[in-house]
Amino acid sequence: MTARKAEPTLRVLVVDVGGTNIKIAIAGERRVLKLPSGPDLTPSRMVHSVREAVRDWSYDVITMGYPGPVKGGRPQQEPHNLAAGWTRFSYARAFGCPVRIVNDAAMQALGSYRGRRMLFLGLGTGLGSAIVDHGKVQPLELAHLPYREGKSYEDYVGVRGLKRLGRQKWEHHVHQVTELLRAGLLCDYVVLGGGNVKKLITLPPFAARGNNLWAFRGGGRVWTEGALVAR
Amino acid sequence: MTARKAEPTLRVLVVDVGGTNIKIAIAGERRVLKLPSGPDLTPSRMVHSVREAVRDWSYDVITMGYPGPVKGGRPQQEPHNLAAGWTRFSYARAFGCPVRIVNDAAMQALGSYRGRRMLFLGLGTGLGSAIVDHGKVQPLELAHLPYREGKSYEDYVGVRGLKRLGRQKWEHHVHQVTELLRAGLLCDYVVLGGGNVKKLITLPPFAARGNNLWAFRGGGRVWTEGALVAR
Repeated sequence: MTARKAEPTLRVLVVDVGGTNIKIAIAGERRVLKLPSGPDLTPSRMVHSVREAVRDWSYDVITMGYPGPVKGGRPQQEPHNLAAGWTRFSYARAFGCPVRIVNDAAMQALGSYRGRRMLFLGLGTGLGSAIVDHGKVQPLELAHLPYREGKSYEDYVGVRGLKRLGRQKWEHHVHQVTELLRAGLLCDYVVLGGGNVKKLITLPPFAARGNNLWAFRGGGRVWTEGALVAR
Repeated sequence: MTARKAEPTLRVLVVDVGGTNIKIAIAGERRVLKLPSGPDLTPSRMVHSVREAVRDWSYDVITMGYPGPVKGGRPQQEPHNLAAGWTRFSYARAFGCPVRIVNDAAMQALGSYRGRRMLFLGLGTGLGSAIVDHGKVQPLELAHLPYREGKSYEDYVGVRGLKRLGRQKWEHHVHQVTELLRAGLLCDYVVLGGGNVKKLITLPPFAARGNNLWAFRGGGRVWTEGALVAR
């Protein structure tokens, strides 16, 4: 631990690209900047407005949280809620520094990790998912697996489920799904994150509430703790 | 590779405990011994008959494949198809040598691994499952997750599904389930093992047929390649 402290700290700019806004922070610092996002956002517009906004900040490298599957360090599909062009863009060139791209749920999972084998479920518009085991993150795509009545997990615990079922029944299914997936994936505990976690009154067993701000800690861990497995 | 060859080889006796028989081999050797198993088999009877059978074999350590969940190196639940007493037995003392216990599907998964992120599905009486990622095995318990019509994956692709649906429909669901789980768990490929894999006429995309004998290679890897993660 002391040896690690002697190294100069890598300053990581974390850019969490969502459908409603882009959140920006330096990992380990408190200030968070929000910029608007939306269906017109192209990657070059994103880079332009981020660089403009952090003109006076100093950082060495960037972690970008991406709202979709990432493979080989690149977005694998165009995002659902943004403009196109994200899979073929040269982020490092546009930002002028090294960039690591990671699925947004995986980034929040990493930031929420407190040891052993953890399942992260992000209760947002959809259902984000990732496992962190022994410090290494494994992005998952559990949202569209079948749950019941021909519908998927996301259909029940994502925002459409919340609207269709009402808060109370939605909470019941969040409990059911959390426990099913924790048992099926042999995880020791679950962290529930995402924008709708604050709507839960009670938590399932072996589950804790996450915090969206932990995503920035996750973005830092991508560079500093070898938490990313080549994929 | 050459440095590794210089080390003396650890001789691993692999004991794969199933509901019908116990299969025994030295990892890396061809001969396989089968002993009867069944609902009367206690752990001390198992050890007694294994030690008797391999009296003339030389080995340093043992890997035991166990038909149920394993945690902290110990069987976590009593087996469904054997007698009781398996969770509290002292295997190393009874065998007189170091013993590592691993879930049987996880052991076969390890032996089937050919790089990247692999899902193993064992089509037997039930549905065994495990992921191997970057050489490390993660046992799973996917069998009882919901699949359709209020039934689980195992209800469709385990032996009860085969009997209820007939071979052709069963094969259709093996394809469906394989592709669902590969996509949901973001695996690069799937190895299908277990006794019923030979009943498949066609294989799903990104899937390969496993071989029950690879379990012995997996049992060897438990000791030689750091493939087991403390759990």
